[in-house]
Amino acid sequence: MGTTRDCISLLTDYGYEDGFVAACHGVAARIAPAVRVIDVTHLVPAGDVRRGGAVLAQTVPYLPDGVHVAVVDPGVGTSRRAVAIAAAERIFVGPDNGVLSWAVAAVGGPERAFALTNEDLWLHPVSSTFHGRDIFMPVAGHLAAGTPLESVGEELPVERLVTLPEPSSRVIDGRIDAEVVSVDRFGNVQLSVRAADLAQVGARVGGALAVEAGRRQFTVPLRDTFASVPPGELVAYSDSVGQLAVAVNSGDAAERLGLPPGAQVRLTPSA
Amino acid sequence: MGTTRDCISLLTDYGYEDGFVAACHGVAARIAPAVRVIDVTHLVPAGDVRRGGAVLAQTVPYLPDGVHVAVVDPGVGTSRRAVAIAAAERIFVGPDNGVLSWAVAAVGGPERAFALTNEDLWLHPVSSTFHGRDIFMPVAGHLAAGTPLESVGEELPVERLVTLPEPSSRVIDGRIDAEVVSVDRFGNVQLSVRAADLAQVGARVGGALAVEAGRRQFTVPLRDTFASVPPGELVAYSDSVGQLAVAVNSGDAAERLGLPPGAQVRLTPSA
Amino acid sequence: MGTTRDCISLLTDYGYEDGFVAACHGVAARIAPAVRVIDVTHLVPAGDVRRGGAVLAQTVPYLPDGVHVAVVDPGVGTSRRAVAIAAAERIFVGPDNGVLSWAVAAVGGPERAFALTNEDLWLHPVSSTFHGRDIFMPVAGHLAAGTPLESVGEELPVERLVTLPEPSSRVIDGRIDAEVVSVDRFGNVQLSVRAADLAQVGARVGGALAVEAGRRQFTVPLRDTFASVPPGELVAYSDSVGQLAVAVNSGDAAERLGLPPGAQVRLTPSA
Repeated sequence: MGTTRDCISLLTDYGYEDGFVAACHGVAARIAPAVRVIDVTHLVPAGDVRRGGAVLAQTVPYLPDGVHVAVVDPGVGTSRRAVAIAAAERIFVGPDNGVLSWAVAAVGGPERAFALTNEDLWLHPVSSTFHGRDIFMPVAGHLAAGTPLESVGEELPVERLVTLPEPSSRVIDGRIDAEVVSVDRFGNVQLSVRAADLAQVGARVGGALAVEAGRRQFTVPLRDTFASVPPGELVAYSDSVGQLAVAVNSGDAAERLGLPPGAQVRLTPSA
Repeated sequence: MGTTRDCISLLTDYGYEDGFVAACHGVAARIAPAVRVIDVTHLVPAGDVRRGGAVLAQTVPYLPDGVHVAVVDPGVGTSRRAVAIAAAERIFVGPDNGVLSWAVAAVGGPERAFALTNEDLWLHPVSSTFHGRDIFMPVAGHLAAGTPLESVGEELPVERLVTLPEPSSRVIDGRIDAEVVSVDRFGNVQLSVRAADLAQVGARVGGALAVEAGRRQFTVPLRDTFASVPPGELVAYSDSVGQLAVAVNSGDAAERLGLPPGAQVRLTPSA
Repeated sequence: MGTTRDCISLLTDYGYEDGFVAACHGVAARIAPAVRVIDVTHLVPAGDVRRGGAVLAQTVPYLPDGVHVAVVDPGVGTSRRAVAIAAAERIFVGPDNGVLSWAVAAVGGPERAFALTNEDLWLHPVSSTFHGRDIFMPVAGHLAAGTPLESVGEELPVERLVTLPEPSSRVIDGRIDAEVVSVDRFGNVQLSVRAADLAQVGARVGGALAVEAGRRQFTVPLRDTFASVPPGELVAYSDSVGQLAVAVNSGDAAERLGLPPGAQVRLTPSA
């Protein structure tokens, strides 16, 4: 037997209006009755692998060591591989389409990888469209219950794992070309810039940033937090995972600025 | 004492914006501190008994044996009965308005039924509008903690239970007249046709179906899964619970085709 | 060591689309692996302290004794205090902006209060924008695991706690001037009137209320429950927490009447 694990986390694009998430919980509970399941989110936009990958990577460091399942899987039912990846004291389980890659990197990178080919650990019959219920959660349940990682299927070289490209970010001539990584519930716009990197271009808290986004241009004060500016005003700050973010205090910056995930921005210190 | 049960599942139309679901969890936790509660969904459209019944029936087979509570209850506070129904190793608890009936049938049909008339198991004072908190979850908590089913109230003949009519489905002259059972988060349209029944009219995977819906008519390839067709294209397939479904790969079939739950369709093999 | 507690409840305005709630669950699970976390709701409108306070107050009486965390915190990162408040057998944890005050009052009022100043109980580094993850949940986890309340920081006189003003309600000349406290998922409009207070103005179940709201005026039958009137009709009744509410049976009263939280109404018995 391998190590038992107390906790499975689950991220999907299944939404909350159907019983899909509950079926996943149920399958895990039948295999590993004592395990706790923490829902990361189930509101990843349908098929949005990058968004799923970004949320998982930013959340995993705060979750207990355990089995982390992510199912954003537009290729379900095709020949895309299903994998389990060991990294630090964790095991990541999901489709091999990159959704796991940023989270695996966030905890130190992949140590071993296995294709999920051992059908004894699956739920039968296996549907062609709901591998979260029929493959990923059953495997995660068995792993949590102590089945050794080596039992899930054949080992793969970690170099063969599919990875998502990192969001682009480039420091050049005293400015930073970056992109929007994600937008949270509050409309706060997270950029592909480590707050620590701002020093390289001479920006500092207390100063300001000139932001170009397409044809629009605006200046944003750089502060410790959004509450450092009056309600309704723009502010840039280091967010809760250390990324540079742009917010409107008590407002929605993504909406006001028209900056969805993937949008390109250019930042220059302006004061 | 009866058998203790580890798991209560809960399906309602309470939504997530109020504290209603949490009050239900809290009441169960106070009575049965060790029990796990699995939320099936709380986004059943308000008062939509058929939708609640369909989601429950398709999810229950994947949940651990336990107590399954469903509260979609437009008649709360009237004389509609509250019931507990034994089926297989499970107990179903809810209003006697049919919301439980498809799920009970899915696990083999009702074995015994009881009206919830033993007020000792309720939370007092009982409100006239929130029986999920005051009657159904307290009773479920006691059942999970080992109170015998016979204690919940007086036994009823199972023939007196309210049942929802099955979605209509009729094979005639080489075609199938059916209806839309449900639409999931992805806009996939589930029909009242067992995928296995397609053979009766000569349809087979690799061929296609002509679909008539009102005045509209379209042809849909019949494949193993939605990923078998290019993104944006229609496809019919056997869904994760073995029903025939129509999807748009990476799109929303219900929206494109204008097929809400209850819509009538006629299917004819076309290739 | 203090008493261990089995249950943490969590109410926030974080929403479900990001990993914020999961990070909070994860942090608690790492500190207190055996604790159960009950989500009260995470759909409080962003920064709406009154709405958060109202939902918490109406839910807490049904939750097990435990640690109750509420994070609706538009002042995060400013000098607003973070507190833990003992009341009955419970401990409330959150920002000192009033979000806890109605819930604390609902269980008997504050007995002792402490500022969260002991940084040993926090997660480091502490972000300036996500104190739910970095301060409130870690402290709650430690309290649940048995850390004595006195360890969280320096004691405060309970009189110094910030409290929200009670929703206004005034009985005068045989009428009641009140306001809308909250609107639930179904559009039921809860007023700042204890149903029991209606007797003071001579209103009784079976009769009716004349309601003035701005320039509009309408008459509403006073009944036991919304199902006492035909679908589509207005009704006033004592809701599940004993407040007077106005509903439309199988409909949305808030939308039909244009009555959002905070709206003023005048009630007069009319039959």
